[in-house]
Amino acid sequence: MVTPADLAIKDLGPCRHPSPVAEKLGEKATVYVGEADKVLFNDRLSAVLADASGERPPAFELAGPRNRVFWDPKEVRAGIVTCGGLCPGVNNVIRGLVLTMAQSYGVPEIFGFRYGYEGLVARFGHAPMRLDPRSVEEIHRMGGTVLGTSRGNQDPHQMVDTLEALGINVLFVVGGDGTIRGAMSLVRAIEERRLSIGVVGVPKTIDNDIKFIDRSFGFESAFAAAVDVIRSAHVEASGAKNGIGLVKLMGRHSGFIACAAALASADVDVVLIPEVHAELDGPCGLLAHLERRLARHGNAVIVVAEGAMQEHCTSSAEPMATDLSGNLKLKDIGLFLRDRINAHFRARGVEATLKYLDPSYHIRSVPASPSDSVYCWNMARNAVHAAMAGNTEMLIGRWHGRFVHVPMPLAVRMRKQVNPTDDLWMAVVEATGQPLSFY
Amino acid sequence: MVTPADLAIKDLGPCRHPSPVAEKLGEKATVYVGEADKVLFNDRLSAVLADASGERPPAFELAGPRNRVFWDPKEVRAGIVTCGGLCPGVNNVIRGLVLTMAQSYGVPEIFGFRYGYEGLVARFGHAPMRLDPRSVEEIHRMGGTVLGTSRGNQDPHQMVDTLEALGINVLFVVGGDGTIRGAMSLVRAIEERRLSIGVVGVPKTIDNDIKFIDRSFGFESAFAAAVDVIRSAHVEASGAKNGIGLVKLMGRHSGFIACAAALASADVDVVLIPEVHAELDGPCGLLAHLERRLARHGNAVIVVAEGAMQEHCTSSAEPMATDLSGNLKLKDIGLFLRDRINAHFRARGVEATLKYLDPSYHIRSVPASPSDSVYCWNMARNAVHAAMAGNTEMLIGRWHGRFVHVPMPLAVRMRKQVNPTDDLWMAVVEATGQPLSFY
Amino acid sequence: MVTPADLAIKDLGPCRHPSPVAEKLGEKATVYVGEADKVLFNDRLSAVLADASGERPPAFELAGPRNRVFWDPKEVRAGIVTCGGLCPGVNNVIRGLVLTMAQSYGVPEIFGFRYGYEGLVARFGHAPMRLDPRSVEEIHRMGGTVLGTSRGNQDPHQMVDTLEALGINVLFVVGGDGTIRGAMSLVRAIEERRLSIGVVGVPKTIDNDIKFIDRSFGFESAFAAAVDVIRSAHVEASGAKNGIGLVKLMGRHSGFIACAAALASADVDVVLIPEVHAELDGPCGLLAHLERRLARHGNAVIVVAEGAMQEHCTSSAEPMATDLSGNLKLKDIGLFLRDRINAHFRARGVEATLKYLDPSYHIRSVPASPSDSVYCWNMARNAVHAAMAGNTEMLIGRWHGRFVHVPMPLAVRMRKQVNPTDDLWMAVVEATGQPLSFY
Amino acid sequence: MVTPADLAIKDLGPCRHPSPVAEKLGEKATVYVGEADKVLFNDRLSAVLADASGERPPAFELAGPRNRVFWDPKEVRAGIVTCGGLCPGVNNVIRGLVLTMAQSYGVPEIFGFRYGYEGLVARFGHAPMRLDPRSVEEIHRMGGTVLGTSRGNQDPHQMVDTLEALGINVLFVVGGDGTIRGAMSLVRAIEERRLSIGVVGVPKTIDNDIKFIDRSFGFESAFAAAVDVIRSAHVEASGAKNGIGLVKLMGRHSGFIACAAALASADVDVVLIPEVHAELDGPCGLLAHLERRLARHGNAVIVVAEGAMQEHCTSSAEPMATDLSGNLKLKDIGLFLRDRINAHFRARGVEATLKYLDPSYHIRSVPASPSDSVYCWNMARNAVHAAMAGNTEMLIGRWHGRFVHVPMPLAVRMRKQVNPTDDLWMAVVEATGQPLSFY
Repeated sequence: MVTPADLAIKDLGPCRHPSPVAEKLGEKATVYVGEADKVLFNDRLSAVLADASGERPPAFELAGPRNRVFWDPKEVRAGIVTCGGLCPGVNNVIRGLVLTMAQSYGVPEIFGFRYGYEGLVARFGHAPMRLDPRSVEEIHRMGGTVLGTSRGNQDPHQMVDTLEALGINVLFVVGGDGTIRGAMSLVRAIEERRLSIGVVGVPKTIDNDIKFIDRSFGFESAFAAAVDVIRSAHVEASGAKNGIGLVKLMGRHSGFIACAAALASADVDVVLIPEVHAELDGPCGLLAHLERRLARHGNAVIVVAEGAMQEHCTSSAEPMATDLSGNLKLKDIGLFLRDRINAHFRARGVEATLKYLDPSYHIRSVPASPSDSVYCWNMARNAVHAAMAGNTEMLIGRWHGRFVHVPMPLAVRMRKQVNPTDDLWMAVVEATGQPLSFY
Repeated sequence: MVTPADLAIKDLGPCRHPSPVAEKLGEKATVYVGEADKVLFNDRLSAVLADASGERPPAFELAGPRNRVFWDPKEVRAGIVTCGGLCPGVNNVIRGLVLTMAQSYGVPEIFGFRYGYEGLVARFGHAPMRLDPRSVEEIHRMGGTVLGTSRGNQDPHQMVDTLEALGINVLFVVGGDGTIRGAMSLVRAIEERRLSIGVVGVPKTIDNDIKFIDRSFGFESAFAAAVDVIRSAHVEASGAKNGIGLVKLMGRHSGFIACAAALASADVDVVLIPEVHAELDGPCGLLAHLERRLARHGNAVIVVAEGAMQEHCTSSAEPMATDLSGNLKLKDIGLFLRDRINAHFRARGVEATLKYLDPSYHIRSVPASPSDSVYCWNMARNAVHAAMAGNTEMLIGRWHGRFVHVPMPLAVRMRKQVNPTDDLWMAVVEATGQPLSFY
Repeated sequence: MVTPADLAIKDLGPCRHPSPVAEKLGEKATVYVGEADKVLFNDRLSAVLADASGERPPAFELAGPRNRVFWDPKEVRAGIVTCGGLCPGVNNVIRGLVLTMAQSYGVPEIFGFRYGYEGLVARFGHAPMRLDPRSVEEIHRMGGTVLGTSRGNQDPHQMVDTLEALGINVLFVVGGDGTIRGAMSLVRAIEERRLSIGVVGVPKTIDNDIKFIDRSFGFESAFAAAVDVIRSAHVEASGAKNGIGLVKLMGRHSGFIACAAALASADVDVVLIPEVHAELDGPCGLLAHLERRLARHGNAVIVVAEGAMQEHCTSSAEPMATDLSGNLKLKDIGLFLRDRINAHFRARGVEATLKYLDPSYHIRSVPASPSDSVYCWNMARNAVHAAMAGNTEMLIGRWHGRFVHVPMPLAVRMRKQVNPTDDLWMAVVEATGQPLSFY
Repeated sequence: MVTPADLAIKDLGPCRHPSPVAEKLGEKATVYVGEADKVLFNDRLSAVLADASGERPPAFELAGPRNRVFWDPKEVRAGIVTCGGLCPGVNNVIRGLVLTMAQSYGVPEIFGFRYGYEGLVARFGHAPMRLDPRSVEEIHRMGGTVLGTSRGNQDPHQMVDTLEALGINVLFVVGGDGTIRGAMSLVRAIEERRLSIGVVGVPKTIDNDIKFIDRSFGFESAFAAAVDVIRSAHVEASGAKNGIGLVKLMGRHSGFIACAAALASADVDVVLIPEVHAELDGPCGLLAHLERRLARHGNAVIVVAEGAMQEHCTSSAEPMATDLSGNLKLKDIGLFLRDRINAHFRARGVEATLKYLDPSYHIRSVPASPSDSVYCWNMARNAVHAAMAGNTEMLIGRWHGRFVHVPMPLAVRMRKQVNPTDDLWMAVVEATGQPLSFY
């Protein structure tokens, strides 16, 4: 038993001094002494209900196997489809789904649909692959997806046609925000036909930006690949007088990869993310900061997320285009910054050498790291357990370090972003020495 | 706002079929439908208090910077000591402590004590190193600790003598279970002299076995290194008729490294850990299982944690010895198993080729992975914030995915172990195809 | 003793059948039976002279230490300068020069000139660094050069001024073709002043294109880094219907990196290098080949050296510009191909997905591989031995697998290129299945 | 045209000073000025014959495709067998043999014999695998051999029975010294029956100890893996007061791996190899050297090849045993040194901490590095070209950087070893600072 007294922290006395951190970052970035929030020792619903009467607070269902299942495993015909951009670990997830279904439940028939939702629409002519333990045994050693992928949703009714034709009763959908919305349309179409087909999601987002998934699979592998590229930028910057290394990383709306890669590499001087506004000009702007950095240290490394500073390179006159998945086509902030920085130093008469690195696809195509491999295995296992129990229109999430069931409508309701007043951004600010924002 | 209704999971109907998983693993390993516990959406104490009246449940203080601090940063003279066995990331922690103190708080004097607690005892003659941002800038690229380390505790009064002589008022202790106990003795000796010296711990355990730290730094890097060795064992086992690869990994009391490395490598057929009993002989024993595996697949890979199956290789007649840290000296289960397996197949007239790999120190000496680097940086930052706020006899923990303050007495009260009825072990059982235990 | 009879190869009889290889590649690519040339068992000059009378054939002086040296080591003041683009292993070479001079010869003073030849010209104001064993001990763990680098040559007389002012009598120049020409001008300026200053080169070329250096340092590390990127291109190409991965690699005039990376990765279907002409259009052109490949295999990976196919993207109207080192500024063949291939398939109504990867600086900034580390150490050692023996205007080469002395004028007389009728290109052709050329 | 004058090296004057290197290493280790041998510019036999009359000196036949072949490719039934210990790159060689035969020559039937020569003997019951381009496409991503391997030779007549039964007319044998001797017996048995079966070898030796192969495949990958382990030993040694890291590496008779790994890692202080005698005791012995090193630097890293110093741990009373391949079973020099060093420092009252690392199988089971992958591809291609031309009882060698044909009897006549008076050992001595020998 752990009591509140067990968790009391000893201190040496009252805090009499103002904190230099609070002075530097602003009080918003810190917490008043004695007012820091606390984390419950036991965050299971049953524990709270035992202690308190009254209404049930919101709580996620824990993932895992159940003693009874909805489907007779021998009659399950399962399908797997992978959608959207590549992400490390997709093959691990496919492998985990197939092995758990076949070996733990004895599911006899598993189909892999090719090239995303296209594979569920007959007119594209992509015949599904038969998957079994032997065919997936070694696929985790490579990045990417053996099923292929494509962007964009398809007509849900045509997809249900295919599911019916093949007798699929459980479909696993591996994909991001847009894919989950597609899966929700599919569920509506299934319900309209009063069919019994479960649709279970394994959320995939290399940007780590899906809410209720405290860590998305592949994220660690991706930012580890980015660290290598940042090291090269650092080496290039160090090798030249006033050397600047500029690295563009993924992150359309959320700067998690940029932040994590910068913290891991310890060689980054400026991080620019979509969530934090940055001015180029003025004494508090990026260019002036960069100039001061070069004057003092002789080189600098900048990491910019692809979605950062879009307001600088778009104009209201020219509306942004969208891709097949409905995502806005971003302007290339990397090339924009490269040109603006070069122009600035030329104008100032400072000889600077900027090296620009855009690793793009290289980062998302690496195989899953050992840690991500474990994670993908558990994601996949729990997705199978959830599907066998008859759940539908839900995905496997991760909350407070535990795998949970998340309804799809909740998952797409909001996006996870770096909170500029929270811990991660502050860690970046402390590590890089940059200000909270360039304004 | 998220309500309970938002978290309700849709299903296709009641679960009418018994689960093959429950039948295979036993009902204890699974959860009755509808009885699965739930995870609170909001596990902050303030949220619970808002909803319910009554007593405060136990809760951890969240880590992070405060708006006011106990120490005048300019008067802080800090010390850092690293104790016990090596672990990936120790240099990252040292670097993070020094950079945060110097750059975020302006602490002017930081000493690194050499070779563990020996460095705090004058008669060993280890002069402390002066640490500053420049001297620690590159140390994270190498494994190990630039301060050196040693096993075992020292006389707390002699250690306080050194702290007093140098005017140290904040001491950071990086170490495991035994080291934390040593730090608690030190705090008592400080209190006896009515000194104002804060002692803050950064918990280090390559075995990931400290309670209230849901992931210890270096753990991911260590099991990633183990995955490479397991791959070699798999290659060796595949290259010979009836090839057996046997890998001994760390894990004195807890099998986390063995479990994680096995899940990540996907090449392991048997995992043996201290928490799960395993018989060698009999129809349900390891040797019979191994024989069946060879008959079917022609090869096998076994991963054994160093603390597993000790009951097989010790005798009551010969009491176990202890090392300088007070740890029991384990028998070498790797060599024991190698000999017993070889003897078994020789006796059965089966030609088998066993290759034994003991990576030992190699695994704990690798540099921190990118993910561990981020983690160490955050551990170190939060330790400095805690120390500056005047906290003492506490360490930085990780609970439900957040950094928290953990009192040292609580941290050493129990050990974290793999729960054989919980998710991790079940994931291993599903991945390897081995039974829940060899009995 | 080995006699000609010992080297006679047994065969089973005369060769009566035409070779399918000769038919496919053309007879030029193969050798008539019985006419294959032979490699001398002993290629030392002394062996030939013992056997035959007559004139001495051309032969390289073997590198290595001598029993007597020209310089009194205690009076040597050495300088090191690194020029041109980064290349893996430059820091290893610097380290090897310093350690060998200091530890093997006892040279007391070693200066590192900053930022290439600029560091030898006073008006740039780059103060030289003092180098000793301690300051270089760990530099090989990072790519790049601790001395910095720059492109282009400087006025030789101003450089001699600096050498005289500092009393330098031995200068090591690490650089490529242009740098060696700069060193030759420097030697002439030294000779004009009748000074005794030795100038010894360590040839650096990431493109592996210096003649008389059968393998340049850093080359293996560079193409190993390229293999990772090609793997990503392969993963991307496999993940999409009619997926094409296009990778641009270094290689201004010589396609060695492209060839070696393609052979090592085993995932490449087309290699394009400067030495082999390639048409885009027509039935034997690249685009038709690519179309056939997609039709049969559904995906393709193309590796193009930056200097390949320049005739396609330049026009005589627009003369090519040059950079500071006097190198022609190449057109971007990667972007050109990307656009042409996309346009081709659009015009043909084939839905294809091309992913373009340009790793650029990432490849040249990696640390030296273990094999390159050994090689750099030997390059550096032998450069010191040569310099101590009083040699000048020469560089360390590698001929028939042995380190030799190469006069600078000879080294810059011609460039090493892939011979389209020789073994390397044929290995590529066999591995990729592409024709000898796209004409 | 290159003339002798083109190769003349400029110098600054006569060498008047004795060399400190010669003084330190002894004159035997260096070369008299002006007496250094030279390397022929052109080492092709045709070049020498053009210049000189008289007898043909010994020369190797160059490898490569011929315009005509002995076998009608469509009638070739090929076999591949891999023997002896694992080595990085064996799968690459298998893949290269199969792809070149199938794709370049159109060979229709290729068999892979299982578990070494056992697979050629019917009573072992190992059915051969059918190999084709599809089945070998991905095998190079893993270490080891998909065919399996075993030690020891089998009865040549029983092996010919199998070849005859299957109609094999070309057999590729991948193996080392013992395997080549086995292949020679097989050739004799084939000749006795007047059969037309070609036997072509691809020499495999992780120790790099086969003569006439200036670099054996897998060697670079193996020593690169060793470098990682040495780094761990260095980290461990640095982490403890008087820390000693002791690493045992492969090398039964030849210390190439130990030397190369030591040079590449730059962290090694002592290298012990079979070719260089080392005393333990006495003022010039290893233990005294180690003691001096600890006194000055506080730590040391020792690399010992498994075949080194055997005279210290064997006694004439106890004759050495042999394994199935006929190799002498070596005593474990690693454990011997560990115990002797520990005993020495205990006796001297010096507290030292020795960490022993024995990576054993881990090093030989890694996948081939990019550079080795290229090399294996070329080895395999040239083996096929040689076999198609009807050659037999020969293997592919590497001489002066070119692939050549080497008669098997010549290849096994002597073993390649580190020459203690030659360049490699001197490079080690300069890099480690150890004496030429501990005597």
